[in-house]
Amino acid sequence: MPSGEDSLIARYFRPIATDPGAFGLMDDAAILKFSGDDLVVTTDAIVEGVHFLPDDPADTVARKALRVNLSDLAAKGATSAGFVLTLALRALDDGWLTSFARGLGEDAGHFGCPLLGGDTVSTPGPLTVSITAFGRVPAGRMVPRSRAKPGDRIVVTGTIGDAALGLDILKGGTVAGALADDPAATAMLVERYRVPQPRDALALAVREHASAAMDVSDGLAGDLAKLCVASSVSAVIDAESIPRSSAVRGLVKRGIVGIEAVVSGGDDYEILCTIPENRFEVFAQAAGVAGVAVCSIGTVIAGTAVPRFLDGTGREIVLQRLSHSHF
Amino acid sequence: MPSGEDSLIARYFRPIATDPGAFGLMDDAAILKFSGDDLVVTTDAIVEGVHFLPDDPADTVARKALRVNLSDLAAKGATSAGFVLTLALRALDDGWLTSFARGLGEDAGHFGCPLLGGDTVSTPGPLTVSITAFGRVPAGRMVPRSRAKPGDRIVVTGTIGDAALGLDILKGGTVAGALADDPAATAMLVERYRVPQPRDALALAVREHASAAMDVSDGLAGDLAKLCVASSVSAVIDAESIPRSSAVRGLVKRGIVGIEAVVSGGDDYEILCTIPENRFEVFAQAAGVAGVAVCSIGTVIAGTAVPRFLDGTGREIVLQRLSHSHF
Repeated sequence: MPSGEDSLIARYFRPIATDPGAFGLMDDAAILKFSGDDLVVTTDAIVEGVHFLPDDPADTVARKALRVNLSDLAAKGATSAGFVLTLALRALDDGWLTSFARGLGEDAGHFGCPLLGGDTVSTPGPLTVSITAFGRVPAGRMVPRSRAKPGDRIVVTGTIGDAALGLDILKGGTVAGALADDPAATAMLVERYRVPQPRDALALAVREHASAAMDVSDGLAGDLAKLCVASSVSAVIDAESIPRSSAVRGLVKRGIVGIEAVVSGGDDYEILCTIPENRFEVFAQAAGVAGVAVCSIGTVIAGTAVPRFLDGTGREIVLQRLSHSHF
Repeated sequence: MPSGEDSLIARYFRPIATDPGAFGLMDDAAILKFSGDDLVVTTDAIVEGVHFLPDDPADTVARKALRVNLSDLAAKGATSAGFVLTLALRALDDGWLTSFARGLGEDAGHFGCPLLGGDTVSTPGPLTVSITAFGRVPAGRMVPRSRAKPGDRIVVTGTIGDAALGLDILKGGTVAGALADDPAATAMLVERYRVPQPRDALALAVREHASAAMDVSDGLAGDLAKLCVASSVSAVIDAESIPRSSAVRGLVKRGIVGIEAVVSGGDDYEILCTIPENRFEVFAQAAGVAGVAVCSIGTVIAGTAVPRFLDGTGREIVLQRLSHSHF
């Protein structure tokens, strides 16, 4: 006579918990075997209406919940080892859960990060997905935020600003109207918001070459400021060199959005890292082999000032806010 | 220019994140060092209005959130190694957070389970505290649910039923009225609901002697049924021998509550384990040394039937429900 929670777990999640340490989700705990590596632990939750929208497809909710954690692991130079899931649900909706578990299982397989265990609780509030993910690095080799040095190059992966504009579209903001005749760009920006792309392929190169790294989740400007504080340095960024998709470039050029929406918007889930100058070439080569676009956007400098963003003429861009904060 | 979340973390949680692997909560991830042991991972969330009440003091909410996880670790025979916290908050309430962090810090110190990292998110819904806790056991020695054998004794720690009746009191149920003239019993039962007592002192004895174990969180009857399913066995319980506080004994004797409220109520957070007969005496001695009351309540038998609870005359007690389920 299993309880509702047991049935739910057996039906939706046991099929994707194939790691032996998960015990088929039949026990109270999971096992991670030690391997001689350090275990890197990260935890990130996403809340309906805050980090995803009630209309977002269930499979993309699952993918985003896992990927925001995989993004953290990659930025720390870690190889993913598994995750545990806490799901706070209002009700049992078979269609939603089936889609959620399918998206989660596909991503767990694709990124080699098995479901190890979890907890399912009922809530009268918004759906909340909380994941704690585990990665491995050789002992002492986790890439911290705190070792950037003056002279290091500042590098980001992928493109910045897409996800924030995708959210604007989903909320029916000005970007939605401006792209009304461009369904491909609209779909791309929405997809970037709903399904971030963890840069796991770059984890090894980050570990080998970066002096400091983190993922960009709350906005490039704010996250760079955090990295600088942790490293007791400052930075100068050439805003023109910040990599942007052609959709974002077009919107900025047309004056639909300003640079602030791009660099302070959040939800990018790209890697921000600092690379010593004499390592940059080999790092860029490794990134090419890994198939991850990387772009040098500025330089670490001495000092404690908030990082400065300069426009094409070398003038400082005054940012009203650096990042998205929920509080 | 730290964000609200950074300030919150710095102010309330950095002081209690003293483990070197926590990096002062200044990084995106924490480190658990290799020790040769298996790492036991468990995760449990508590939701306002579901697992705790809006009026519960903040420090007890923190203690309960951590202790329900420590209870799992103890039942698996594991020594606690640390935890990560996800806190979903509606608003920043300084008094609440100060009390929450104080309770959490005191328990983290008391149980030797340091805060390693976490995530703080805003929610329009109920306050939710999700914890993933880590423990260590020698390789291959986690105590599973699945190895109970016919003939083993069935043992529980502490007393059963207190917490469920404490919840009844907090909800103004029949128990509240029945104990109106007994403030000491009322306070004890409420405390048992709000602040479970993890049986961490018994972890080593469980690991050394138990064939199977789990913690009792959803009700003794239902949790025993789960253990039996996982072990492919059945069980017979002498209901009279189930350890109860004098408050609970009195309430049952007066007919205020039935045995079902005791064995199916949930929130006990005691250890349920099976001990081979030839190990029972040495296990009981070890429990005595550890200062944890243990009580033999029945026997594992062959079969696949739902465990039977017998009254003092040997007649089967028919339970309408085995445990609390949120779905």
